[in-house]
Amino acid sequence: MKVALDVMGGDHGCGEVIAGAKMALAADARIETLFLVGRESEIRAAVSKEGLPESRVSIVDAREIITMEDKPATVIRRKKDSSLIRAVELVKERKADAVISTGNTGALLAASKIKLRMLPGVERPALATVMPSSRAQFILLDVGANPECQPIHLLQFALMGNVYSQHILACSSPRVGILSNGTEEMKGNDLTREAARLCRMSHLNFIGYVEGHDLFSDRVDVVVTDGFIGNLVLKACESLGKSVVTLLKREFTANPWTKLGAWISRNAFRNVRDRLDPDSYGGAPLLGLNGNVIKAHGSSNAHAIRHAIRVSAQSVACHINQVIQEQVALADEILKSSAQEDPIDLVSA
Amino acid sequence: MKVALDVMGGDHGCGEVIAGAKMALAADARIETLFLVGRESEIRAAVSKEGLPESRVSIVDAREIITMEDKPATVIRRKKDSSLIRAVELVKERKADAVISTGNTGALLAASKIKLRMLPGVERPALATVMPSSRAQFILLDVGANPECQPIHLLQFALMGNVYSQHILACSSPRVGILSNGTEEMKGNDLTREAARLCRMSHLNFIGYVEGHDLFSDRVDVVVTDGFIGNLVLKACESLGKSVVTLLKREFTANPWTKLGAWISRNAFRNVRDRLDPDSYGGAPLLGLNGNVIKAHGSSNAHAIRHAIRVSAQSVACHINQVIQEQVALADEILKSSAQEDPIDLVSA
Repeated sequence: MKVALDVMGGDHGCGEVIAGAKMALAADARIETLFLVGRESEIRAAVSKEGLPESRVSIVDAREIITMEDKPATVIRRKKDSSLIRAVELVKERKADAVISTGNTGALLAASKIKLRMLPGVERPALATVMPSSRAQFILLDVGANPECQPIHLLQFALMGNVYSQHILACSSPRVGILSNGTEEMKGNDLTREAARLCRMSHLNFIGYVEGHDLFSDRVDVVVTDGFIGNLVLKACESLGKSVVTLLKREFTANPWTKLGAWISRNAFRNVRDRLDPDSYGGAPLLGLNGNVIKAHGSSNAHAIRHAIRVSAQSVACHINQVIQEQVALADEILKSSAQEDPIDLVSA
Repeated sequence: MKVALDVMGGDHGCGEVIAGAKMALAADARIETLFLVGRESEIRAAVSKEGLPESRVSIVDAREIITMEDKPATVIRRKKDSSLIRAVELVKERKADAVISTGNTGALLAASKIKLRMLPGVERPALATVMPSSRAQFILLDVGANPECQPIHLLQFALMGNVYSQHILACSSPRVGILSNGTEEMKGNDLTREAARLCRMSHLNFIGYVEGHDLFSDRVDVVVTDGFIGNLVLKACESLGKSVVTLLKREFTANPWTKLGAWISRNAFRNVRDRLDPDSYGGAPLLGLNGNVIKAHGSSNAHAIRHAIRVSAQSVACHINQVIQEQVALADEILKSSAQEDPIDLVSA
């Protein structure tokens, strides 16, 4: 398979991204060609410095860089020769099977929607993120692609998250829940109530509403919400995680005793850090597009890039988009047939 | 001053609540009388076991208990002799200056709204919670009283949170922000955009939108959102906090070495735990009511009850409701006068 990597958008420069590319190539023989998209001279220097296997690397020159300040709406017309857009185009032209970018999320979303289009039957793409629970992990979506949603969008997010959980996170029968302000049926709002009704009719293993308390407690595998709330919850949790790490560091370096204790238990610290480290979870997939697109964090280090490439290869290998398309079509049929059986329900929908 | 304490609603039974009451009485001489509301025989046994000063305690018998399963809408008619309702009535009858309950949040909210009514000028009560940031703390509201809000409600939440931050958290000029999916003005939704416009016109130190990343980073002192989102964010953060503590415990008790390290640095652990401990923050005030009402967590231990009583006494001492009423009236005047100056603005509002 072939993977396109936008090497210019990250906070740490293209060297860090290319170091991650090297790790991914060494770990995954399925990747025949890795397209490195960006300023050729910079890439060439980093490739030779890192010693990447030249036979498996193809440099694609792109002169412009999309910054975090660029407006997604205009950037596609204005920065046609940017690494982000060139990388997405490689997927559009079927030269690459997947694309990964650390750049501007809005621009990646806009470029992917316009260049790749949606999968047949899917109405909106969803940005998904994988987070650690006490003992396992769960997928949360949408975390920012759609600030305003309709019930059918939440159902489709549930279907896509379910496929991702099964095929990428190896969860055999994911428990799917809709995020709400309480678990009772009377809770929620118009959007969540109607979305829950659709999910209940579908073939999903739908467990109803989940609330904030359920998120990290191993009670749910796929958590569905709109992009406004998902974005807030994701960022609030990231912020809390960082704040806890800062607090731990401050307290454990307060005096020689605490430092000694921290040194003796350094393995425990490392395990906690690794478990909470968003970099291990392979970036945020943009699901529902006619192509595999992964958004890696702007602050991704080599380790995070390596995992994002790993996940993109896995997505290609399991034909995730074909499965999503089938599952969406299946749910659509189930909904239509139950609407025929119960026409009153159709009216209330 | 006089404080009413519903001793029956907590998970740990009335003994734990009364142990907290004893600590609060010892720490705060301003409290002349503490009404202990609930089943008299149980309370009497706990009071004599804990050795509370009888001259400062008054037992109010109430036979019924509102459970977490009781429906807030009907409980006020059906359980008139419950500890929660009797305790709220003490404030209504001006026998007590404040009420604290660990019971059913919805029932406390409903009983307070019906029995105490709103402060003049305030449209909706808000449930607020104080959370730790890296170095200080911030107040988040509404965390569940109003799942659906209008812009004016968010403005009033901002005003009430501002007063709480100044008078209870000793923040001299609180930075007030509205929670959104990004800090740029074009972000947010219709609700947040109009609420931000109102806040900008008011006398608040309004810093605009804040996003999830800003919450725990000492960039904002008062975070305003609707009760649906606030509830989700609060519970997600509580869940993550618990999950991190579980993870730390598991890793640091994994083998003798990590246990030794944890023992040596036990002070650091204790400081981290205390800082993250929601029990230290004195319960969640219900702001905007014509009376001081504090919701303590159902799982509150004696330590948490003590802090909730401390905060209620502080609220009474600083006449927080009078200040809220004045601030809401002031903002109302400012809005009206700027609407007169700029009639076009009035139309768009």
